[in-house]
Amino acid sequence: MSDTSKEPNYTENVQVHLQQVQRLLDKHVLGTTVAHQPGILRTEHPELVDLLLQKRHLSELQNLLNELHPADIAFILEALPIEQRLLVWDMVKADRDGDILIEVSDAVRESLIAVMSREELREAAGQLDTDEIADLAPDLPQSVMREVFKSLSIEEREQLRAAMSYPNDSVGALMDFDMVTIREDVTLEVVSRYLRRFDDLPDHTDQLFVVDRDDVLKGVLPLNQLLVNEPEIEVAALMLTDSITLHPDDKAQQAAQAFERYDLVSAPVVDEEGKLLGRVPVNAVMDFIRTESENDVLNLAGLREEEDIFASVWKSAKNRWMWLALNLCTAFFASRVIGGFEGTIEKFVALAALMPIVAGIAGNSGNQTITIIIRSLALGQINPGNARRLLVKELAISLLNGLVWGGIAGGFAYLLYKSVPLGLVMTAAMLLNLLLGALVGMLIPLTMQKLGRDPAIGSSVLLTAITDSGGFFIFLGLATIFLTH
Amino acid sequence: MSDTSKEPNYTENVQVHLQQVQRLLDKHVLGTTVAHQPGILRTEHPELVDLLLQKRHLSELQNLLNELHPADIAFILEALPIEQRLLVWDMVKADRDGDILIEVSDAVRESLIAVMSREELREAAGQLDTDEIADLAPDLPQSVMREVFKSLSIEEREQLRAAMSYPNDSVGALMDFDMVTIREDVTLEVVSRYLRRFDDLPDHTDQLFVVDRDDVLKGVLPLNQLLVNEPEIEVAALMLTDSITLHPDDKAQQAAQAFERYDLVSAPVVDEEGKLLGRVPVNAVMDFIRTESENDVLNLAGLREEEDIFASVWKSAKNRWMWLALNLCTAFFASRVIGGFEGTIEKFVALAALMPIVAGIAGNSGNQTITIIIRSLALGQINPGNARRLLVKELAISLLNGLVWGGIAGGFAYLLYKSVPLGLVMTAAMLLNLLLGALVGMLIPLTMQKLGRDPAIGSSVLLTAITDSGGFFIFLGLATIFLTH
Repeated sequence: MSDTSKEPNYTENVQVHLQQVQRLLDKHVLGTTVAHQPGILRTEHPELVDLLLQKRHLSELQNLLNELHPADIAFILEALPIEQRLLVWDMVKADRDGDILIEVSDAVRESLIAVMSREELREAAGQLDTDEIADLAPDLPQSVMREVFKSLSIEEREQLRAAMSYPNDSVGALMDFDMVTIREDVTLEVVSRYLRRFDDLPDHTDQLFVVDRDDVLKGVLPLNQLLVNEPEIEVAALMLTDSITLHPDDKAQQAAQAFERYDLVSAPVVDEEGKLLGRVPVNAVMDFIRTESENDVLNLAGLREEEDIFASVWKSAKNRWMWLALNLCTAFFASRVIGGFEGTIEKFVALAALMPIVAGIAGNSGNQTITIIIRSLALGQINPGNARRLLVKELAISLLNGLVWGGIAGGFAYLLYKSVPLGLVMTAAMLLNLLLGALVGMLIPLTMQKLGRDPAIGSSVLLTAITDSGGFFIFLGLATIFLTH
Repeated sequence: MSDTSKEPNYTENVQVHLQQVQRLLDKHVLGTTVAHQPGILRTEHPELVDLLLQKRHLSELQNLLNELHPADIAFILEALPIEQRLLVWDMVKADRDGDILIEVSDAVRESLIAVMSREELREAAGQLDTDEIADLAPDLPQSVMREVFKSLSIEEREQLRAAMSYPNDSVGALMDFDMVTIREDVTLEVVSRYLRRFDDLPDHTDQLFVVDRDDVLKGVLPLNQLLVNEPEIEVAALMLTDSITLHPDDKAQQAAQAFERYDLVSAPVVDEEGKLLGRVPVNAVMDFIRTESENDVLNLAGLREEEDIFASVWKSAKNRWMWLALNLCTAFFASRVIGGFEGTIEKFVALAALMPIVAGIAGNSGNQTITIIIRSLALGQINPGNARRLLVKELAISLLNGLVWGGIAGGFAYLLYKSVPLGLVMTAAMLLNLLLGALVGMLIPLTMQKLGRDPAIGSSVLLTAITDSGGFFIFLGLATIFLTH
């Protein structure tokens, strides 16, 4: 380890590995092409040379893959176009299939499972823990799942059934069953001897769970405490009884907040009777946070799910259609609002050039409000007590913005078209539409939250629909009243 | 712990605490109001009754606060309006000030520090580790920092100087100095005895760092290995020498990916000579991931930084101005593009109603492309080898979308205005603008990446500017050519 500074570091490493894989694959493809084109680069025993070359590259690739961490192979698979991806997948040792399938993204996993036989799938699932099988289950054919299920012990079947029964956004979905339990009436000495019988402790074991004969959780013993205290002390004297416990039906989001807030590495999961069911390790929570935040960004752009960047055009297009269709509908509606004022526009064609400004700025400003509100809702900072206060504040900000930016836009309109009434209409319309944006930017997420829906999904498109149509209506309506009479 | 099921759970808990605090504060304010309005609710010794009542509520509040975790107090402070926040802040025991200041968001921290005396600030900083002081430093007055610095030991000064020298997005900023080091030539027995001399191990200690006399890292000993192996084995026989090591100048983003990929709880940080400098614990990484993803969402909406929801209108408005000003500029530009075609619009006023559709849909579609590309760039999946392939794919998707949605929009235009040429112009403009959106949606983030800038910032506003102005230009230009001649 003393020479780490000379090696490329861990993240460059995976990039380097990716490039090595790509280079070897390119050579392989070149070899194949040459082998199929007699007459080029041929000497005495051309086929043999090519085949040997090709073989060498493939065995080099094989060696490289064997050394890589499953997560790194998953990364490489995701970054390769589909035909190369399947070639690499084919070369991965079968006994690592399961671990890699768990690591790749859903979209890429689909493309890998599609080329695996039932037998291979069954074997891959066989290498996994029950909580991991549950993650994989939605992508596996029914018949494979039935066989996997049959191969499990009764206890494992119970765990698998439980793990599969929890919704994706619950603590149950983050839980694993890999943990060490001890009794409270033993000494640390006994615990230490017990631990020495293990080959290894489960990953992320930072505490041992103290249970009674009925598996009811009595407390937790941090490994720290085990290590710094004298061997003759009893567990009961050291165990913590007031630490965080989760329930499988709790929202995963809440558990994630608890992990962040209290800096946890693992937390026990208990049922209503206090019986220990499993534990949530920090890596599951980190994956959850990452996936959640990615989904937020994807949802904001109207992408239904993460895309395999090498998926077919058709598949990617479908992933984006819902959003475009929705936006087209709201655009049609806004277009009809404008259509209702065609008489006014004919008289003042300047209105056509100015109206997108009114609609656009209010949309931007309203989206800022929505973002603040959604964030505060997610953190639990908004309650009925302060919601009205916030609304007043957002309206005040819009009033200020309306005067400032509306004034500038009005001045711009006046300078261009030398019409004071037009400038005043512009300013008034900006002000009113900014207020509208703040109002609906508050009300949409709050209403969605009340209806039990995720305020992050669809709020923005609804807001833009309102500020667009509303902006056109307010601006052209004011113009009709004050400019054409 | 057996009765946890009856208690409200951890996250409800903090909400419950918040409500309790608010209720007590309301009573307190009521008490104050009554005390200041003689004649209302007065009996014999009214002042005394009020004062006592008030006192009782405040001492109740005090007790509640004393029992709460610093992170929970931070949450409550963030959710309270400024005057109540400062009242609660005043009641928090001074010896917890430091821990709480570390937990609150930057915006709220500012409001708390503003009311603290130099003495209080110095004391608060004195309770913290050097890496935490470094986090706080940018918000502290120079004079306070000088005093804090003077109060530190030489070693701590060195650490603080180092911690403050690393940029926010580097591994150095996530690092702490709290770790246990051992030598490789001792037995586990000796290590265990050494650990028993500690009162407690640093949080997130999942491995001990094996160093030589010069503090050069030789390997790591996972606590797991310490626990499951026989006491007479030597550290050298068990320590891992190929585990992840970080460098203080590495990007925090890359370290976060390594933590996620390899499920780490802590990782050592070494300098160029391999000397152990500190370690990064998983909670720092989790905070970083959370902050990053929040910033992404805030940046998408054009908010400079997270807002204290109870900050003044003026402060919040300023946080949002840059974005609105930028958007106003691009809107002015688009407006001038339309202005150039006023002659055409006068003849075909229908164009005014249809043009926002062309601009809007291409903006949405281009933003989908940008989101996919930014995500793939962040994951390191895009390299020169496959960038062109992706561009072709995105263009193909836009072609498909252009035919589908352009066709629908053209049909809509035809149905409304009974003009085949108008319908065809609409379809053609949609198609071209969608292709434009895909092209710039690819090129903007790739170019920003090449220039070493964060592609997540500003890409979207630039794209929308292009699809808006471009859409108006393409649509009105085609109309001028094909409809007015």
